[in-house]
Amino acid sequence: MSLTVWLTGLPSSGKSTIASAVADRIRPVRATEILDGDVIRREFFPELGYSKDDRVENVRRIGGMAAMLARNGVVVIVPVIAPYRSAREAVRRQHQDSGLGFVEVFVDADLDTCMSRDVKGLYRRAVDGEISGLTGYNDPYEPPEDPEVHLVTPHSSPEACTDRLAEFINQRLESRV
Amino acid sequence: MSLTVWLTGLPSSGKSTIASAVADRIRPVRATEILDGDVIRREFFPELGYSKDDRVENVRRIGGMAAMLARNGVVVIVPVIAPYRSAREAVRRQHQDSGLGFVEVFVDADLDTCMSRDVKGLYRRAVDGEISGLTGYNDPYEPPEDPEVHLVTPHSSPEACTDRLAEFINQRLESRV
Repeated sequence: MSLTVWLTGLPSSGKSTIASAVADRIRPVRATEILDGDVIRREFFPELGYSKDDRVENVRRIGGMAAMLARNGVVVIVPVIAPYRSAREAVRRQHQDSGLGFVEVFVDADLDTCMSRDVKGLYRRAVDGEISGLTGYNDPYEPPEDPEVHLVTPHSSPEACTDRLAEFINQRLESRV
Repeated sequence: MSLTVWLTGLPSSGKSTIASAVADRIRPVRATEILDGDVIRREFFPELGYSKDDRVENVRRIGGMAAMLARNGVVVIVPVIAPYRSAREAVRRQHQDSGLGFVEVFVDADLDTCMSRDVKGLYRRAVDGEISGLTGYNDPYEPPEDPEVHLVTPHSSPEACTDRLAEFINQRLESRV
């Protein structure tokens, strides 16, 4: 039995960067899998779009995959926007009901910072009207109210965020053995 | 790194029964997950139907989930019809290319035997014209040409089949450590 670490936040807030660095820290001591939102959608759920219902369903399914891995001892790192609080809470309950750990990490960056990073060019395309429904710009994002870990990426370096989250995960893993 | 054990065969050939019993044998020594076809379709791929394309895509996706678990050390047992040889071979190649084991198990029972068992009542419904495209009855099934394990369930008891498959898996696991 293990745990799922869900990194929620706006596009370009730093979720994937931190997820990758944290996974590299945990992997030497424990099987670790990253469920990247873009990859999982493309490979497994290509039918789902970006309506509210589809976003909620996407989070439900990724939560189910994470639980399947976690109950087999894998540390699951999930850098997925998951904009709706109720959908994240449903995944948390599913994990807790199965005796699995769930760690919600708020990767917190203000919209201006995210738009200036714009790692995938999504904000530019949204500003240009090429895409609609971009979380944080013209689609809702409900920030966590009481996340286990709160990382403010404009104020902390990726290294500092990685250190903090890796330490938190290691402590949770040790306390459960 | 671990392996995927895919049990292919007609509906009511005995795949799920053997999968469950084998998983109970392996689980005490190794993390083990069953990817049941009906459950996985309902929970993760409800958009997929039973056309040839959708069946092939279903097998591809379940193969991807299996590989994800197997590369994290889980023994994955997959009782899924997977009627098309090329789709099964694609999953085998995907596993081998990633250094993962793949064991194809032919759960072999003739159509008359399967129709007399009719665990889920599918053959009855097909005969009555309530459903179409039932593998083995009025939809194709391409049997394995060279499976690692061939279980003829009308000739061997579930216990004997379970013994044989569990022994095969244990030997494969030992030879890979």
